[in-house]
Parts: sequence; structure tokens; C-alpha cells
Amino acid sequence: MLKEAIYHRPKDNFAYAYDEKTIHIRLRTKKDDIEQVNMIYGDPYEWENGEWQTQTASMSKSGSDELFDYWFIAIAPPYRRLRYGFELHNKGEQLVYTEKGFYSKAPKDDISYYFCFPFLNKIDVFQTLEWVKDTVWYQIFPERFANGNAALNPPGTLNWGSEEPTPTSFFGGDFEGIIQHIDYLIELGVTGIYFTPIFKAPSNHKYDTIDYFEIDPQFGDKEAFKRLVETCHKHGIKVMLDAVFNHSGYFFAPFQDVLKNGEHSKYKDWFHIREFPLQTKPRPNYDTFAFVETMPKLNTENPEVKKYLLDVATYWIREFDIDGWRLDVANEVDHQFWREFRQAVKSIKPDLYILGEIWHDSMPWLRGDQFDAVMNYPFTNGALRFFAKNEVKASEFANMITNVLHSYPNNVNEVAFNLLGSHDTPRILTICNNDKDKVKLLFLFQLSFTGTPCIYYGDEIGMTGGADPGCRKCMIWEKEKQDRDLFNHVKKLISLRKKYPAFGSRGELKFVEANDQTNHFIYTKIYENEMIIFAINHSENNLLIPLPFNLKGKKLTNLWTDEEFAAEAEELMTNIPAKGFLIYRVENFH
Amino acid sequence: MLKEAIYHRPKDNFAYAYDEKTIHIRLRTKKDDIEQVNMIYGDPYEWENGEWQTQTASMSKSGSDELFDYWFIAIAPPYRRLRYGFELHNKGEQLVYTEKGFYSKAPKDDISYYFCFPFLNKIDVFQTLEWVKDTVWYQIFPERFANGNAALNPPGTLNWGSEEPTPTSFFGGDFEGIIQHIDYLIELGVTGIYFTPIFKAPSNHKYDTIDYFEIDPQFGDKEAFKRLVETCHKHGIKVMLDAVFNHSGYFFAPFQDVLKNGEHSKYKDWFHIREFPLQTKPRPNYDTFAFVETMPKLNTENPEVKKYLLDVATYWIREFDIDGWRLDVANEVDHQFWREFRQAVKSIKPDLYILGEIWHDSMPWLRGDQFDAVMNYPFTNGALRFFAKNEVKASEFANMITNVLHSYPNNVNEVAFNLLGSHDTPRILTICNNDKDKVKLLFLFQLSFTGTPCIYYGDEIGMTGGADPGCRKCMIWEKEKQDRDLFNHVKKLISLRKKYPAFGSRGELKFVEANDQTNHFIYTKIYENEMIIFAINHSENNLLIPLPFNLKGKKLTNLWTDEEFAAEAEELMTNIPAKGFLIYRVENFH
Repeated sequence: MLKEAIYHRPKDNFAYAYDEKTIHIRLRTKKDDIEQVNMIYGDPYEWENGEWQTQTASMSKSGSDELFDYWFIAIAPPYRRLRYGFELHNKGEQLVYTEKGFYSKAPKDDISYYFCFPFLNKIDVFQTLEWVKDTVWYQIFPERFANGNAALNPPGTLNWGSEEPTPTSFFGGDFEGIIQHIDYLIELGVTGIYFTPIFKAPSNHKYDTIDYFEIDPQFGDKEAFKRLVETCHKHGIKVMLDAVFNHSGYFFAPFQDVLKNGEHSKYKDWFHIREFPLQTKPRPNYDTFAFVETMPKLNTENPEVKKYLLDVATYWIREFDIDGWRLDVANEVDHQFWREFRQAVKSIKPDLYILGEIWHDSMPWLRGDQFDAVMNYPFTNGALRFFAKNEVKASEFANMITNVLHSYPNNVNEVAFNLLGSHDTPRILTICNNDKDKVKLLFLFQLSFTGTPCIYYGDEIGMTGGADPGCRKCMIWEKEKQDRDLFNHVKKLISLRKKYPAFGSRGELKFVEANDQTNHFIYTKIYENEMIIFAINHSENNLLIPLPFNLKGKKLTNLWTDEEFAAEAEELMTNIPAKGFLIYRVENFH
Repeated sequence: MLKEAIYHRPKDNFAYAYDEKTIHIRLRTKKDDIEQVNMIYGDPYEWENGEWQTQTASMSKSGSDELFDYWFIAIAPPYRRLRYGFELHNKGEQLVYTEKGFYSKAPKDDISYYFCFPFLNKIDVFQTLEWVKDTVWYQIFPERFANGNAALNPPGTLNWGSEEPTPTSFFGGDFEGIIQHIDYLIELGVTGIYFTPIFKAPSNHKYDTIDYFEIDPQFGDKEAFKRLVETCHKHGIKVMLDAVFNHSGYFFAPFQDVLKNGEHSKYKDWFHIREFPLQTKPRPNYDTFAFVETMPKLNTENPEVKKYLLDVATYWIREFDIDGWRLDVANEVDHQFWREFRQAVKSIKPDLYILGEIWHDSMPWLRGDQFDAVMNYPFTNGALRFFAKNEVKASEFANMITNVLHSYPNNVNEVAFNLLGSHDTPRILTICNNDKDKVKLLFLFQLSFTGTPCIYYGDEIGMTGGADPGCRKCMIWEKEKQDRDLFNHVKKLISLRKKYPAFGSRGELKFVEANDQTNHFIYTKIYENEMIIFAINHSENNLLIPLPFNLKGKKLTNLWTDEEFAAEAEELMTNIPAKGFLIYRVENFH
């Protein structure tokens, strides 16, 4: 048993409160190195005759990645206190792993050897929002979704879809356009819209805010926005806005004041200015987003700035009843600001969804005191490398995804924001080299994955485009130009996700098989007594394989064809078409 | 190179802001498995011709424990942003370790491979208190330190030191007694006192609070406490009180109200009551400290309770100018409460020291948003197992201590509360089987260690006693009964600690040698251009060994004898007496 590979440290993804009663414990060991793991545990104050009283429970293997196996157990300690260690078995050998290291036998004279989850306090539980688990998001870049009110067109607005967008072109998308097309979103099955910024800003993307309290007039006014939110809510669609709090735009009044008055500006501490006068060559002498001189970083440690931004955050909830905030460049803003942000917004709307834009490993923001979720780019990256780019084979893909899932607590995974693309990435059909079958498999995987999926507008009808600005073309509304087959594929997946709890965020995902020769893999989603089996064949050949389950006597439903049948043999041979998939539902599988 | 052993995850003890400009990065690898580690790093937005611009810097080995080596680098990124990976070398092989796994070459086309420290925001830096680094604490159990005002004696008070204490005996210790003996503390060199609870409570230990706003009358009144604090402050001695916020005493008015009025009590939500009426058999049907029915756990999630306790916390600061709060059973109280506690107390006294009682690994409380320190029992445990109990040899001891140091950021270590014993443990001389030489070595190690040391009253004069109540005997004031030799030993160590920055908390500690045959070890403390060498011989034999440094031409001072000499040979042979030590100071050692 390789000691160096064995890892556990409370809390984070290794020991966390799953709900008000349940603690989840995970252990990492070297892959295929350990046959069995038991948790030795007890209440820290449970002693008899000088000996700590413990129990033992077997842990299960929840997944494996390239180097490691992960072991799991859920436990509900009666007094909400837990001390614990691990008893590892392999080939007749035993090893006990504690906070103080390795022993051959579990010490019982002193609890200080053991790992500690001191008390499950309700308020520290990472609270998942039920509605988020049930939501299918749709990302709208408002300038490019639909032009419903030509009167609002900014000067120089181009005819809708008449040409390829440039970084500075305008096509006049607005709120009215979205309202006019709400039926389209309802038909697709969308239940949440994430809007990139809508506040007053000069660019087409609006990430360069001038005024956080005003709607950009090219989209409409506050009355129009109110109507938009009401229309969405009437149809069960949630609304999430984009908060660009890391930096302001160049024309944000306080920054203009600093430019004008320098050291004498009353806003000089609203930014991070290293010296006066402000200069931009060779590089700005003030902190900015990246090195973009027109995007000065806001000093979120300054109480005035904090108050201003928290007022913004609560204003749009209070006045317009929005349901979520997506936080731009969230990782570069201080943790303390986000803690106060959470307190402020949750105090007026406890089920508001807080989504941070973070591309890397994000555990420090997901401890329950800051965000509800981050944009799950490690998921995106894994899915694109396998399905779209063929850079990795099935087993490496399964390893990557298993690793992502084990990087966070299960409750964090259940509301992770899983996207395949956005206004910041090339479109998936383009990455897939226009191979629609790949896109279909991507959508299948995304929409059956744990977490809350988000579709980038137009991906569902086969829109194409490279990196920004290519991925920001005008939405195509002529039905004959839309890929309706793809649309129906996505629509069907969404409806299955809604119909079967195991299909969606509540289903526990496990890779059952990943074969690099055939490049197929099989995963299951389990919720209560329902199991859904997904088999994906990412190759050019039809595949006839036995399902790795004994389902004899069980009733199966092919969820894609609605065909029902009873498994008659222990081994169920099944055909997965080239670049195709199978979805079987098994009821009462236990 | 054993991939399974290689570990890094931002933030916590592996990647943290040391100060407003400096980020510390650590990497763990298998012991003796890697010859060299370089960090590959850059600003995430520094690109040229589609290639990310990186630099490379060599990391140094900061220590080793039983299984692992630890590598370290300090870096001050000009724009406070950092992406990084590790380049590992062994026997001509190279391995690159990133957030996404291992590669043979560092990828430069995509920064998403790399670990990320997105932005060093000042407010998120774990702030160390300079005064804490300079403090030598002395723990007083007020009932047993000195009886200065017989008029306050509770009924049944015993004559001072006339008998062994029982769990319920009273000897009448009080504030006046402490004031009368302030010269003793000044002579010893103490600069901070940690008082176990002083608030109104029936027991002799006062952990069963009746009223958090009142001084227990056996100690004096508020005027007397004010005088005590002023006396301390006048002599440069800080004052830390004990906050028992996890649970109240049985006679705490709100709990009495619940006992009386049950479900109809307006205080019913101040506790965690599982059902009414309250019962205590077979176990309390309400949450308690351990299973002690007379110590009901407070519901710190309840806003009323929170307000009450935060009012307590700020009252004693505002009215009496105390300098620290030690938080009893801190690990069982919710994190959210401690975050608000920190905000509340720091807003009125920014340099107040917040010390949590946690016996196990405590990283989740030491991220800058909750405590300044915890009671460093892993240090205590290591030191006692080696020096007092001879359970481990020198190398295992060095491993344990190195492991403790690498479990936390350096700035956390610098203010860690290092104790050898307390009112909750047997006295060190007793654990040492009355071997005073062992106690002297324990004090040497404690007082030269990184962090803020605390002496339990009477240990410095050789008091004895087993577990509570044995360790709570009356302080011995008859000089002839005090071990003055031990007193002078401790006093001298304290004075050296104060005189030489490298001796104290600012010195960076490193084990240089640990030999299990001879059971000696050598460690250095380095601060700026000063190095202090400590050699400890924990055996029954005199030891003649070469110091493992080339100090030729350097001036050395034996800090214990004040003898100065210049090293003339490359190898400096030195004699360490049995159960003895050497302390050499080297100036201008670089």
C-alpha cells in the first residue's frame, strides 16, 4: 500500500457537510492499490474504561482517475460530532491512516490521533438551491439575440445578420427582441437565461460599464427590462445578470473624475493607482483587467466602493426580482468582498444563485461562504478535448471528469454551471469541425451531467464561429436556416432531463466502462431506485457490446425510442451506432 | 519520480499571501525522490506571439518529514497575479506538474493548465500581529495563583496550598493576589497573561458561566479587574481572557428559563433542544459540551445569541481594554459565528489576538477570516513524546515538528500559541518523571520555537501534578520551595528570546541534523544576517560531534556562557553534555 499516495484532509472536498445531518468523507489512495477501506469512527466524547468507543463501516469506491482511487462514505453522527480514521486492507495486510500518520493498529487511548469533523453546524452547510438543479440555462448575448425595436438601434447599426461581426459592430439586439422570441425558448425547454451585461456601456459586449444603475439604452429602458423579467417569470424562466465588479469601464464617472482631478479626486481610492499622474505607457500605472488600460480594477477593499457595488447588487434584485448574479473575473476580487456580497444578496433573496467566473480549480470560493457555483470550465475542457477535438481517448476522458467531480463536494457539483461554450470561446460546432454528430454527443453528455447545464444561444441550431467576434454572430431566426434536427435533439434531451430525476442533477454519476480500443464509454446515473445507463460510442464503427450489468428480469426502457423490453439473459448485448449513443432506463434496479 | 506523492493545491498552506506583496508557494514530493524543483511562472496576461511568457526560478527544500520533502519559494509578482507550475528534475529526467496533471514539457499555448493565484488582495492576507510575535505568555488559573484578599474567599476556602486540590475545592485565588505578584512575572520576563475564565460561575474553573458580563466575586469586582489590566499594561504585559461561547453554564439565566418554562421560554432557541420537556437520562435530549448535562451548547446561529455573545466580546475590550480572546472549544462553534466575531472585535481593536482552542489540524480556521492562531497541541504532543516520554527518537521528532510547520502558512506559524501544558494536561515535570533536565530541554525548545510561547503557571518553578485536578495546585510562593535553578533557566531563555530576533518568532527554523543513534538533533534559526545554532543532546552520554556547517572565519558566541570565539577550522568539533544543549550565535553568517 503506497503511503505517499494516501491523502485526506478535512474539510473541503474530503470531509464536508452534505446536509444538516450528513457528513461525507472521502479518501484518496493509489489506483488499484487497496482492496478495501473501512472508516473507524465515533463520537469524540464516547469513552468506556479509558477506551474510545468506535464503530467501523465499509467505504465504497466512488471513482478513479489516472493515478488514484477515491473512496466514499456518507454518515449521520447522532450528536453531529465525528472523529475518524481509515483502515486500509490489501492482500491480508492492514494499515491504519490517521491525522498523525500510519499505524498497524488503530490506537484507542487517545482521540488526538484521529481526523476531526468537530460539529456539523447547519449554517456552515453548503446550501444547494433546488431550483438550480432543475434549471436548464440559456446564455444570451443581448446585442446579438434579436432586434425587436429598431427605434433603439445605435448609430451605424447593421442589418440583422447581414455581415460577420467585428469587435465593434452593432446589430441592435434588444429586450423587445427577446420578449418576442420567448416562445422559442419555451419550446426548447429553457428554464433560465443568463444575460451577459445589460448596463450602460459603450461597447457591444457591455463589459465596460459606465453606470451600474442604468440599462444600456440600446437594449431598452427599465420598464422594458421589468417586462422582460416578468415575461420570463410568467413562463417559469429564471433571470441571471452579469456583474462586472472586478473593474469598471473607462467612462465610469469615478474613473473619469480621477483622470480629470488626479490625486485630488475624491475617487482616487476607488482604484488601485500606483502613482500620479495616471499613465498608460508602456503599461498602465494603475491596476487593470489584464493590461487593458480602459478597464481599471476597482478597489473592492474600499468601504465606499464596497457599499456602491453592494447597492448595485441588491438594487437589481429588489427592484427587478432577478434570480442570479454571474460574477465576472470573480477570482481576482478579494474573498472578503464576496463574503459580504453573499450576506447582502442572500439577506434579501435567500435563493439567489451566485455564480463566479473562475476557470481554474475553485475550492476556496465554494466553501459555503462565497459562491454557489463557478463556471465549470474544467468540465468544458474535458468534454471538448474528448468529443470535439479527439485529443484524448475514452479512459482519459473518464479520468478527467472523475477528477473534476472529486475536486469538490457532491453538493457543490449538483449546482455547478456546466457550459460547452460561451461568448468567450469558439462555437462548439466549429470546434467539432462541423461534425454535427459530435455536437449531439456533447449535448447528450452535458445535459445528462451532474450540475446545471447552460446552452450558448444558437449552438442548439448549429450556429458556427471562431473565437470572439466569430462566436457572437446574430441569432438565426429563419427556420430554414436553423438546424432543426439538432434543435430537436437538444429539446428531447432537455425534456428527458426534466422527466427523470436520475437523468438530471440529482442522479449520481459513475463511469462503469471506458474502452480506448473502441473509444466508447458507459456511465450510469442513479437516483433512489432509478438507474439510467448511458453508452456513448465515439468512433466511426458500429459497436456490439455486452452491457456490464446483470439486468436479467429487469424492465428496461430505451429512452430515445421509448421501446420497452425485459432483459432475459444475464448478459445484454447491445448495439451502439457509430458516433451514436444509447440511453436505457432501469426501474427498481436495486 | 513518484507522481502519486506530488501534491500542491492553492491556497491554504501550499500557496498563500505572506504579506501584501509576497506569495509563498510550497510543493510536496516523495522524500529523497527529486533533485531539483523549479517553478515556472508568469503573469496570466503576459503573452507574445500566441505564447505565454514565463520565467523559471529554483525552489529550495524547506524541510522533510517521514514520507515527504517540501519545496519552497517566495515570489513578489509585479502585478500581484500569478500562474505557475513545477518542473521537477531527477537523474536527468524532467517532469512538469500542473493543475491538469503531468507533462514532459511545459505547455505554453494555454494558461489553463497552470495553477493560479489570481490576485493578491491585501485584505485577504493573513495578518500577523507584531506584538504577538514578541510576547511570552503566562497562563494563570486565577483560583490558584495567589490569594490577595481574604475577604473575597468563598465559603469553605482552604488554606493556601494546605492540601491537594479536588475537583471542587477552593483556595481563594483572586485579582489582588495577581497584582501583588506582578513583580514576579516581570522578573521572569513574561509579557502577556492568559487567564482562564473570570466571569461569574459556580465552579473553581469558571468554565460554567452564569453571567458573561460579570466578574466572579471570588476574584474581585470590575474595579479590581480594571486595576489588574492597568497594572499589567503599565508593565508591558498584555491580557487575554477566556471566552466560553460554545456552551453556557447550567445556571446561565436563559437556560434556567428554558428549564422552567420549556417550550414557552423565550430562550428556547438559544440552545439546541431536540425535544421538550428537557431530559438528562440516559443522555441529555439537548446538545451539550461532550455529554455534560450542565453545559448546554449555545445556538450561535440564532441572531439573538450571536448579538449577546458579540456584545460580550466587545464589552470587555471597550470597557477594560483587554488584548486577546482565547476561545474555548472553538472548533465546535460554527465558522460563520467566528467570522462575525472577528469583524466585531477587530473593528474596535484591530490588533486584538484571537486564539482558538483546537487540538487537531486547524487550517479551516486559519485562513485569515476567523482566528489569528490556535493552541498548538500538535507541537505540544511532539515535544512531550520526544523530550518527556522518550516515545520517539530524534529523527521522528524532527519529522513531526517539520510536518506541523508545513501544515500551515509561515505567517500562521509565526503567531501560533505554543504550549507545553495547561490546566487540561498533567504538569510537564510530572510527565518527565521529575527529570528536571528534560524540562529544561522542553523549555529551551519551546522558547526558541517559531510562534508565541506560553508557560503554565508554576511550571517554571518545578511544580508537579497529574491530570486535573492535580495540575491545578496552588502556586508556591515560598522561595525556598520554588526550584530557583529552573526559574533562572526559563528567565534566561526568555531574555535571550527577547534580545535576538533569530531566537524568537521571526527566526526561520530548520532541522539540520537528527541522529537516532546518539538521539541528538541540531536546528538553526535564521533572521536576516543572524543565525542561531541549537544543538540538543537528549541522551545520557556526553557527545562530541562536528557541527554540520563550515563556519571557518566566522565569529561565534555561545549564548549560554557568553563566550566568544572564531571558528578556525572548517569543521567545528563541539561537546554537548548529556541531557544538555548548546546555543551558538553566528553574526553575518551569509
